[in-house]
Amino acid sequence: MDTETTPSKRTGGRSAAVIHNVRKAVEELVREKGSERVTVPMIAERAGVNPTSIYRRWGDLPTLINDIATYRLDPNRRLPEHDDIREDLAAWARELVEHYRKPVNAALLRGGASAAGERQADCLRDRRTEAGMLLARHPESAVTADQIIDGVIAPIIYRVIFLPWTLDDTTADDLVDRLLR
Amino acid sequence: MDTETTPSKRTGGRSAAVIHNVRKAVEELVREKGSERVTVPMIAERAGVNPTSIYRRWGDLPTLINDIATYRLDPNRRLPEHDDIREDLAAWARELVEHYRKPVNAALLRGGASAAGERQADCLRDRRTEAGMLLARHPESAVTADQIIDGVIAPIIYRVIFLPWTLDDTTADDLVDRLLR
Repeated sequence: MDTETTPSKRTGGRSAAVIHNVRKAVEELVREKGSERVTVPMIAERAGVNPTSIYRRWGDLPTLINDIATYRLDPNRRLPEHDDIREDLAAWARELVEHYRKPVNAALLRGGASAAGERQADCLRDRRTEAGMLLARHPESAVTADQIIDGVIAPIIYRVIFLPWTLDDTTADDLVDRLLR
Repeated sequence: MDTETTPSKRTGGRSAAVIHNVRKAVEELVREKGSERVTVPMIAERAGVNPTSIYRRWGDLPTLINDIATYRLDPNRRLPEHDDIREDLAAWARELVEHYRKPVNAALLRGGASAAGERQADCLRDRRTEAGMLLARHPESAVTADQIIDGVIAPIIYRVIFLPWTLDDTTADDLVDRLLR
């Protein structure tokens, strides 16, 4: 469920509308110009809000872009539930590949990458949590969450950032097969 | 050998000095502020050149940052030459980890990441070429260049960007061991 349909009592409808408009403006501008050419004044103008409101809520542009990149892959969506770990991991990895084959999602990830490093990017912390949840359903599996990050998530994210044209329909299954071989 | 010590006849000494000063300014500013907060006017002021000279030579800021990130890991350095592929790959991967454990190199890579995707980043194309050269010296090895990228380069670069504090003295050897197992 989208955050803007369930605004908290404290922030109220007007604030939720600001969040919605700012997110929409960022997505449009990143799609049109690429994340590295988007500025806060541009976003404010497109969203019809004051730049001060953006700085007050998000602090700076990298934090805002990171927030949008996180929001787009819903951390509350259902995870795959198959009988074996290979099927679960492959379905989960295919979902990630599909998500990042959309150019706007890849552009947002690249924008988030430029601000990462100091703190852990939220969208990737979610993926690590999900890897742990899949493993918990299959206690017999011989791989660890770290190995899933290195063997499946890292190659997908590396391609999204640097080689997006190499992501195809077999990428996810190939990486999972190699991990479990 | 540094590029600025061998300026071509055409560009001459003055132009080489501009390149040197701009590179130095970018490295200092990225170290001080992080790549996403550096602007062309800031670089021009620090380097003592006109912003126009920067735009004329590099086109835009992402291209400039990418150029610096490339330049810092010398593509003409000697590659390892051991008797077996495991030793060669491990030495090469350790060198990469060491390079990117320096915060300024990691910051430059993150800056380059935000501009990647449309074109292939030069610094990473060099790594792919190097993987091919190492394999050519060991024709008996059962891995491909793509597997080296997915299994060694991608996890290192992923950590550099998102989890730099997880890079340690065993990362390179662990990844190569897992690849060749």
